Amino acid sequence: MPTYTAPLEDMMFLYEKLRNNKHYNEIEKYKEITTELVKDVLQEAAKINQNIILPLAKIGDENPTILENGVVRTPPGYKEAYKKFIEDGWQSLSCDPKYGGQGMPKTVSAFFDEMLSSSSLAFKLYTELSIGAYNCIHHHAADHIKDKFLPKMVEGKWSGTMCLTEPVCGTDLGLLKTKATEQSDGTFKLSGQKIFITSGDHDLTENIIHLVIARTSDAPPGTKGISLFLVPKFIVNDDGSIGSRNGVSTGSIESKMGIKGSATCVLNFDNATGYMIGPKNKGLNSMFTMMNLERIVVGIQGLGISETAYQNSLSYSKERKQGKSNNNKSNNGADFIIEHADIRKSLLNMKSIIEGERALCFWLSQQTEVSLYHKDEKTRQEAADLVSLMTPVVKSFFTDMGMEITSDAMQIFGGYGYTKDQGIEQLYRDNRITPIYEGTNSVQAIDLVFRKLVNKNGSIIDKYISLIKKETSIGEDKIKPFIEKLNKSIEKLNRFTEWINEKMKSSKDDVSAACNDYLKVLGLIAIAHSWIKVLEVSFKDYEKNKKFYEEKIQTANFFFNRVLPRIESHYLTATSGSKYIMDFKFN
Amino acid sequence: MPTYTAPLEDMMFLYEKLRNNKHYNEIEKYKEITTELVKDVLQEAAKINQNIILPLAKIGDENPTILENGVVRTPPGYKEAYKKFIEDGWQSLSCDPKYGGQGMPKTVSAFFDEMLSSSSLAFKLYTELSIGAYNCIHHHAADHIKDKFLPKMVEGKWSGTMCLTEPVCGTDLGLLKTKATEQSDGTFKLSGQKIFITSGDHDLTENIIHLVIARTSDAPPGTKGISLFLVPKFIVNDDGSIGSRNGVSTGSIESKMGIKGSATCVLNFDNATGYMIGPKNKGLNSMFTMMNLERIVVGIQGLGISETAYQNSLSYSKERKQGKSNNNKSNNGADFIIEHADIRKSLLNMKSIIEGERALCFWLSQQTEVSLYHKDEKTRQEAADLVSLMTPVVKSFFTDMGMEITSDAMQIFGGYGYTKDQGIEQLYRDNRITPIYEGTNSVQAIDLVFRKLVNKNGSIIDKYISLIKKETSIGEDKIKPFIEKLNKSIEKLNRFTEWINEKMKSSKDDVSAACNDYLKVLGLIAIAHSWIKVLEVSFKDYEKNKKFYEEKIQTANFFFNRVLPRIESHYLTATSGSKYIMDFKFN
Repeated sequence: MPTYTAPLEDMMFLYEKLRNNKHYNEIEKYKEITTELVKDVLQEAAKINQNIILPLAKIGDENPTILENGVVRTPPGYKEAYKKFIEDGWQSLSCDPKYGGQGMPKTVSAFFDEMLSSSSLAFKLYTELSIGAYNCIHHHAADHIKDKFLPKMVEGKWSGTMCLTEPVCGTDLGLLKTKATEQSDGTFKLSGQKIFITSGDHDLTENIIHLVIARTSDAPPGTKGISLFLVPKFIVNDDGSIGSRNGVSTGSIESKMGIKGSATCVLNFDNATGYMIGPKNKGLNSMFTMMNLERIVVGIQGLGISETAYQNSLSYSKERKQGKSNNNKSNNGADFIIEHADIRKSLLNMKSIIEGERALCFWLSQQTEVSLYHKDEKTRQEAADLVSLMTPVVKSFFTDMGMEITSDAMQIFGGYGYTKDQGIEQLYRDNRITPIYEGTNSVQAIDLVFRKLVNKNGSIIDKYISLIKKETSIGEDKIKPFIEKLNKSIEKLNRFTEWINEKMKSSKDDVSAACNDYLKVLGLIAIAHSWIKVLEVSFKDYEKNKKFYEEKIQTANFFFNRVLPRIESHYLTATSGSKYIMDFKFN
Repeated sequence: MPTYTAPLEDMMFLYEKLRNNKHYNEIEKYKEITTELVKDVLQEAAKINQNIILPLAKIGDENPTILENGVVRTPPGYKEAYKKFIEDGWQSLSCDPKYGGQGMPKTVSAFFDEMLSSSSLAFKLYTELSIGAYNCIHHHAADHIKDKFLPKMVEGKWSGTMCLTEPVCGTDLGLLKTKATEQSDGTFKLSGQKIFITSGDHDLTENIIHLVIARTSDAPPGTKGISLFLVPKFIVNDDGSIGSRNGVSTGSIESKMGIKGSATCVLNFDNATGYMIGPKNKGLNSMFTMMNLERIVVGIQGLGISETAYQNSLSYSKERKQGKSNNNKSNNGADFIIEHADIRKSLLNMKSIIEGERALCFWLSQQTEVSLYHKDEKTRQEAADLVSLMTPVVKSFFTDMGMEITSDAMQIFGGYGYTKDQGIEQLYRDNRITPIYEGTNSVQAIDLVFRKLVNKNGSIIDKYISLIKKETSIGEDKIKPFIEKLNKSIEKLNRFTEWINEKMKSSKDDVSAACNDYLKVLGLIAIAHSWIKVLEVSFKDYEKNKKFYEEKIQTANFFFNRVLPRIESHYLTATSGSKYIMDFKFN
């Protein structure tokens, strides 16, 4: 079974030294949150993850969630762990105190999301979608709905889902068929089938609050005729008590490659009572509030699993002896494999990506909070634009890198990595869903290039690049070589963006065939930018914590030398156009 | 379940049009093999693979091989399929007619290997290691051993294994501990434990012939004290009948991420009777004959699985509707996903790599045959050098690309790709062993750079590049843009090689940290070279089969525009050196 120790030092480093977004620090409600409090929270978070959640990973993989006589049963130990999880208040960490939450900012809760992902993604999903549903209800529902449903969801006694996908529509929600018929009392009756519903049914909570997109009988076709409904598994009485079973049943659960502890359900809605959330026919907008936040969390899943893969590869490399390194240090003929340049390269590749991603994610958490809670509307909007730009990048890049890192971890373990014993192959299988769900990574790339680079507020990508340029324009001599490399990469990105803008007019297919490469280039630059910010502190505070900062500098050096140059091939291949791709017959 | 149709047209194209190695065509014993015969063989091969072997893939995944009361039981249907397989003579396809084989060259049997890999890798492994063991015995054993064991192995009634790995030694065989004690009759008694033994035990054959490396009591330490032994599961009597059980037992079988139908065994040797094969203390040399041929076959496994992934992604792309493409052709709002530029790009990426690999493999098969059977020793040696150069490339590059291709296939299937129903995730899991076994891909890269570029016959890489240059120096106008791109890549490779040669003297760690990138660069160039040869025919014979050759030209175009430029990033990152990697503390 993999081991895991929460990277508290790195997290606290970010929290203390990189929390320098002026607008974030102006948010009134977070002013009371002290560094000491955050440290305490993260230390407790580390404990429950390392001691209670981590062991659930293997258990869930070996005893997948099952559907038995219409009841979904989670793996052994899940119930007890979930009980402890909500009793200790982890479900309410980031929720509104008005409904019983602890009101922690994403700068803290994102670290908790990472730890949970590192420990057991399958278990995490039961808690994660509830937060997604909570966010959506919190933003869009009427007060009486919020008062009725949110306190129990914040407490964790009830959980939530997002019901979007249907057999014929995943990416393309305009095709959906589920119908909602209005009743004389203003409620709706929903009928239809939803598939791939994470935590769609289970035995952890007393009730499950489904957020379902469907069409009313008079809805226009396509995405403009979709409304959002709250459909509880059990009807909730006016006094808040649980009433009769609603018309929602579990048709089957999926047998999957990984995250086997997670219940991925086919849900059948048969005249199920639902309550409309937000305005009619605007359901996709409401759902996307939740989807976007959720997409960032999926990126964090990739980061979290990568961290566990890295930690275990590192310790295995220090235990396993094979072959002589070039600087043979052993007398008995074989060195620890960590002495081999190729293994070290692989470990540093992981570390430089993981720590860069964590720093980027911390930056994004601050921007997200500003976008939601800053008092000035313009400031909120500017932050929201940056968040919308970075959301598909974080989702795709972190999850793709998660595959690279878990795969490299398997290679380090060799044959042992392929067997079930070590649990490394499970990290690889579990992470493999992350580039798929919440919109495949290709769909994210299309979203980025066609919808996020430019919006009604102008060129968001230009604003982002200006921000990087501004933030990296000063710096002491030692940091200059890094900034020069970043600037070269930015030049390439700018050329790429110009190419995109040009082709957007003349050949959209060229753009479509370039989206994935563009996303990767932007992801690499965003992480390089984050590393520059880490380096600034590292050089400035070097003497205060030599060992820590020396590691940071060396790891950054690896990133700029060995990871960032991937940009070259992406740019070269993408700008070769698409005529020969579109002309191909595929007969 | 995935479908599969053997790509006979492409195989026969290679066999008819690219079998132009002068030395290969001089091999006497293959002169009788007509194109018609090969076509018949491949058509029959396609039938057994598509109809009998393919269904075993899912069965084996759902009903893994088990160890029950000391007996290893293969999945349902394996026995019947294996019986048919050997009755129809497939096991003997490439074997020496002297022992009952059909004497087909690798230019044919490699296609069969590919088909088997496309159909069921787990099943294939039961037949593959037998051929490995056959080759090793055929090359190194004394005649009386050959006469006693080979006919039954060729017939398929007995199977074979390669027993190398022990708990503390995988890559580094110098650490192995299994002991062989000489007996007064010249036989040996072997004691020790071997792990990860593919097809180490099973119920498909009457006997299993293990090839085991071990140390005699007077052996020097390290790799120079390793001898090779033949250790049958059942002692074979002088009349060829099966005698008593030998001291080999199965300790356990591995529970693995994929190839679950394959028995991966822990074998315990307890005073097991063995016969020395080849000279004492030269066991690794003998074993490597087999290992090198086997490594090429592992590369072919990656190719074969890629083909199945491609075929299924292609058909799914033509059935699944999602979203509007840029050139919307549908009235009901969604296009088949094959209309989307990004999906087309992904499919062409697969196709251009697969067909390029197949052509490279066909070239390599000819070289292998020349290296083994040409009458002129110098010619044999020159071919052997090229084979030794390309072996680690084919093993690593094809299996890595297999992961890229099966992963991209999953992305095309979206959520359905992650569930068990479609069988796509199984291709991904099954293929994941190929970058690990027979020496991890990193070990292959080290082997390439440290042992294969230059040997006692001079600079093999320079000879290979000269060969490419010679073969691509002429050509009509249409082919010139492709050759120019190849030449640019070769310039980069040459600079990379010079850098390697330089660093080999001054900083071996720089070289070690660059091996993987070097291998990938060479792999891309080798495939580009193969595409040039395909293009030559395609332009020349264009009018004879327009549809086929037009596809080839477009696919090659994709390769040169979108795949070959990956070289840039590999070169850039690798030549950044290793000081910062070796200095890192990893505390």
